[in-house]
Amino acid sequence: MTETGHYLAKMRATAPLVHNITNFVAMNVMANVQLAVGASPAMVHALPEVAEFALLAGALTVNIGTADTDWAEGMVQAAAVMTRISRPWVLDPVGVGATRFRQDLCARLLDLRPTVIRANASEILALSGLGGQAHGVDAGDPVEAAEAAARVLAAQTGGVVAVSGPVDYVTDGRQAFRIGNGHALMPKVTALGCSLNGVIGAFLVGQPPLDATVAALAYYGLAGEIAAKEAQGPGSFAVAFLDALAALTPEALSAGAKVRAA
Amino acid sequence: MTETGHYLAKMRATAPLVHNITNFVAMNVMANVQLAVGASPAMVHALPEVAEFALLAGALTVNIGTADTDWAEGMVQAAAVMTRISRPWVLDPVGVGATRFRQDLCARLLDLRPTVIRANASEILALSGLGGQAHGVDAGDPVEAAEAAARVLAAQTGGVVAVSGPVDYVTDGRQAFRIGNGHALMPKVTALGCSLNGVIGAFLVGQPPLDATVAALAYYGLAGEIAAKEAQGPGSFAVAFLDALAALTPEALSAGAKVRAA
Amino acid sequence: MTETGHYLAKMRATAPLVHNITNFVAMNVMANVQLAVGASPAMVHALPEVAEFALLAGALTVNIGTADTDWAEGMVQAAAVMTRISRPWVLDPVGVGATRFRQDLCARLLDLRPTVIRANASEILALSGLGGQAHGVDAGDPVEAAEAAARVLAAQTGGVVAVSGPVDYVTDGRQAFRIGNGHALMPKVTALGCSLNGVIGAFLVGQPPLDATVAALAYYGLAGEIAAKEAQGPGSFAVAFLDALAALTPEALSAGAKVRAA
Repeated sequence: MTETGHYLAKMRATAPLVHNITNFVAMNVMANVQLAVGASPAMVHALPEVAEFALLAGALTVNIGTADTDWAEGMVQAAAVMTRISRPWVLDPVGVGATRFRQDLCARLLDLRPTVIRANASEILALSGLGGQAHGVDAGDPVEAAEAAARVLAAQTGGVVAVSGPVDYVTDGRQAFRIGNGHALMPKVTALGCSLNGVIGAFLVGQPPLDATVAALAYYGLAGEIAAKEAQGPGSFAVAFLDALAALTPEALSAGAKVRAA
Repeated sequence: MTETGHYLAKMRATAPLVHNITNFVAMNVMANVQLAVGASPAMVHALPEVAEFALLAGALTVNIGTADTDWAEGMVQAAAVMTRISRPWVLDPVGVGATRFRQDLCARLLDLRPTVIRANASEILALSGLGGQAHGVDAGDPVEAAEAAARVLAAQTGGVVAVSGPVDYVTDGRQAFRIGNGHALMPKVTALGCSLNGVIGAFLVGQPPLDATVAALAYYGLAGEIAAKEAQGPGSFAVAFLDALAALTPEALSAGAKVRAA
Repeated sequence: MTETGHYLAKMRATAPLVHNITNFVAMNVMANVQLAVGASPAMVHALPEVAEFALLAGALTVNIGTADTDWAEGMVQAAAVMTRISRPWVLDPVGVGATRFRQDLCARLLDLRPTVIRANASEILALSGLGGQAHGVDAGDPVEAAEAAARVLAAQTGGVVAVSGPVDYVTDGRQAFRIGNGHALMPKVTALGCSLNGVIGAFLVGQPPLDATVAALAYYGLAGEIAAKEAQGPGSFAVAFLDALAALTPEALSAGAKVRAA
């Protein structure tokens, strides 16, 4: 693929408006992350306006973390708009294995063919098994355990599937990449996984989904590596991470990205 | 007007209880900002209690950023209480140009005559044109483009209108001021605009609306200038900004405020 | 009681899943606090799944800060599950004195016998007087004023009651302790009180409620003391506090805890 820095540069030049329907824990962090990377975030979920608003956005991100009945309906409406007008949208199926409500909602969203699904290995496994048995909360499955499921999901949706972990795995069902950037402090700060989907959404606008997703993951992980160098713990890491996202140049990204074909 | 530091000192001596109905992105930041400046925040929106709670507060702030049908009803109920008992309230018409739902809600809120409206230029333009055409999301209009609209709005509501930008414009329809404090990092941190309304609300308690608003804007912008001196990016800026709000003295505010008649 | 560090070590070894139904202001902070201490947070409130999810958790925390009708129902359902299956849950009756809605909700929750109630003195007084007169918002009552009420509440619920203040008071109605750890900057950061309940919830899993609560309060307050040493104000304090929670060892806790029998 083209150098990762290219996709960052194009995203910043576009400064896309990204419509996010995300959970209450992530909203503030995700907006700050999107501002730091150079995108323009909007958090809009209300049924009287969510479909109307989706028409204005370059991309949509959907995260089911704290959805309830009305929010779920809004997610489906907004995703349906994006699919209809052929704009990209990203699904984060948080805790999909935990309850029947989450499984039913994700089944509806999968039918709308997300451009990208990003989740941890346990969630990808639960998602690929919808219709099968529930998985309970995250069992801490390793990334490798979900690679076959990721390829099946990608074939099913016609989109990209990204499995997050110490080394991420990204596939469109035909090609696949591994991204080795990241740091152990990242999962110690809440909503950094959720917020990554906001970055993927921004990268997707006007760029090829597989390459854009790989570049977004490398960028995000590299910013984490840089932030960890001056962090004393999860509090100072979160602060330095936003600074690093804003400061990282396309050249530094191309130089620091750890991407290889899988 | 009196020196800006005077209004800060009086607000801190009052430590007013401010009732906020704001968006999910801003809630935590706004509460921290209000605590840092010396006010006492309360976030209350539920229909079974919102009007009852409004009676306890010195001021109310309303931000439509993530409103839905029930929240909108709560905003109208609480604002109606404040208008009825002659206590100040502040309106932040986030993204009013974007959807019909926001326009309808703002039309109802305008009828309740907000003491202060604070918004960016595009929102002020959209607000003044309610009944006219929609504007889409923020078009990045310059402050100057919204000054006439601000004066019309102020005359219509009998209140103060503040247009945020690199140089803010504040008017009650007769007098007007420009405030030159602020820093380019401020719009790179989400919800700092929303949270400013919480500071205005605190300043309004027992103080004249036009002067209190001008003082609040100068104070907020000056804290941003101070914070920017030690910031490495948007993450460290947000941290230093809270520290600066808490540390800034009335004397330093009077000395650093860049206020001039317009 | 056993050394406080023992309870911290056991909590970290357990890394319990804690189910939180908390307010919008606190959600992000509480999740970060729970991650920093070594627990696993989940924020779940939706009626279609809240009772199902509660079955998966080691402990539940309930905070009524921004509850509305549906959330209140979810709180009652989840607390009922925990009581039925004999797992611990914590109640934070935020602003219970302020509105009739909060008083009614807390009366329902008290009937479900929370394992621990933690609140400030004014809230404990309001809670113990349910059925009596409303108290308005926090009157800033001193901890001592609520000690008798705390003992009555503890006897009524069969649980532990913790009164937060400069020196905390914790009782199960028979024994009582005072915890002197803490710092004046802690109440200047929003949601640190709410988030403490998340730490108590994590400590409760598999540990005796009175001792676990005392240890959690000492740990939390000691982290505040450590963080204050490098803080320039409330912004930098909040960052350093998360770092301190993560870094504090059981040995340092046992050495620094200021606990005495009351």
